Amino acid sequence: MKKNLSVFKIGGAVIDDIGQLEIFLQGFAAVASKKILVHGGGKSVSSMSGRLGLEVKMIDGRRITDEETLEVVKMMLPGVANKTIVAMLQKYGCNALGFTGADGDMIKAKKRPPKDGIDYGFVGDIVRVNGDRLAGILELDYTPVFTAMTHDGKGQLLNTNADTIASSLAVALSGFYETELYYCFEKPGVMKDVSDEKSRIPVLSPSLYRSYKKSGAIHSGMIPKIDNAFEALARGVSRIHICHYRDIANLNSAVSEVGTLIVNH
Amino acid sequence: MKKNLSVFKIGGAVIDDIGQLEIFLQGFAAVASKKILVHGGGKSVSSMSGRLGLEVKMIDGRRITDEETLEVVKMMLPGVANKTIVAMLQKYGCNALGFTGADGDMIKAKKRPPKDGIDYGFVGDIVRVNGDRLAGILELDYTPVFTAMTHDGKGQLLNTNADTIASSLAVALSGFYETELYYCFEKPGVMKDVSDEKSRIPVLSPSLYRSYKKSGAIHSGMIPKIDNAFEALARGVSRIHICHYRDIANLNSAVSEVGTLIVNH
Repeated sequence: MKKNLSVFKIGGAVIDDIGQLEIFLQGFAAVASKKILVHGGGKSVSSMSGRLGLEVKMIDGRRITDEETLEVVKMMLPGVANKTIVAMLQKYGCNALGFTGADGDMIKAKKRPPKDGIDYGFVGDIVRVNGDRLAGILELDYTPVFTAMTHDGKGQLLNTNADTIASSLAVALSGFYETELYYCFEKPGVMKDVSDEKSRIPVLSPSLYRSYKKSGAIHSGMIPKIDNAFEALARGVSRIHICHYRDIANLNSAVSEVGTLIVNH
Repeated sequence: MKKNLSVFKIGGAVIDDIGQLEIFLQGFAAVASKKILVHGGGKSVSSMSGRLGLEVKMIDGRRITDEETLEVVKMMLPGVANKTIVAMLQKYGCNALGFTGADGDMIKAKKRPPKDGIDYGFVGDIVRVNGDRLAGILELDYTPVFTAMTHDGKGQLLNTNADTIASSLAVALSGFYETELYYCFEKPGVMKDVSDEKSRIPVLSPSLYRSYKKSGAIHSGMIPKIDNAFEALARGVSRIHICHYRDIANLNSAVSEVGTLIVNH
């Protein structure tokens, strides 16, 4: 029987609030199974770009990563965010070890070619996760903490969406472990109405998803996250939850009581 | 018989020049034995502090690391410098894996208490290197790349001198490997006269060291580096060289032809 592995992705708003981050990391450190954490940098890249007088360029909510912005991404993601998280996890007795995709050659990506006249710059689409090497690190009882950067193997670091990194790691490791994937953020789950905290959707199937998209209840940033989740489920991940960061303390509750469970039937 | 391990520390001026850094990293990637790289951030912390309008405080050439400066250290050392180096080494086929002392709990330190009215701030003195854990990483064929930060185990990152990190790692690993330590910088070695490239001291014994210190030929920043080296030699490191970063391609030359060999007799 395969051992259990839990992959957690923590959202930007939680990273931006040190109090919320502490609550989440205490819960994360207490998770008994093997585990991996994936994080971005919240708003820190935009705010540091502003302090340095760099122009922040976004198209449809996606950052244009030019050369100067990539340096700021290195500063704020593997620098400030990752090291702060690793040091805090050590305090809670969790032997965290920070990674970008370049470290240990864990995640190789390809620079996204310009499309429809839009050049996203140094942004990478994942081509390979080194699952067996990562399993070797997990077997030495380290807890990998990945930030949202990959590399192309030719010396170039690339900015890569943290949700996609989380699902790619979960898929790659599902051959070695019984793998669960948790997207943790500051909402109770996927909501029918984001302004109503009681409108959580406990279980989301493909047919329900289609109808909520049609009605407009599920829209914008939630759509790529859920698409990612369905794809990961189809590719071997055993359980996927989208939930509140505080739910990390209650993962053993009945499924319907915590977040939104993604199911493919 | 123990396997060989080479620990290299690369100096700040080499880090600051991407051309020099490429030459060094190509040579480093080609070193056949197990190996570790240790680096600081060159002048990047001071220049970024300047860009952010922070006051750079130094006493006797040592940085005062207040809370804001520590954030800049995180940005420039594990962020920009470490990730740039790791990605470049991957390009040269070296499976680099970046570390601060907090990652994997590899180097624990104690915040230096204020002394003689001087508070250096978030600066750490090393209390323990986790040699057996680090040997485990080396045995998986990763090449650890350490930057000059440690942690106190209570969530606090600390700035720690890169020369000291290099010698502490070499000492801790000399129980597992036949360990050599190389301090690589932009000079041919320890010089009788820094303005004369031909005045390299090929072999430095304690008695020669005393006489060069007395004459003033060896002074200022070189003294703690050489003190570190003699201490590491006394504590089990088998060979210590202070040499030019280009010498990394010629480490198998006759000892007297490359850099300054530190000997304790």
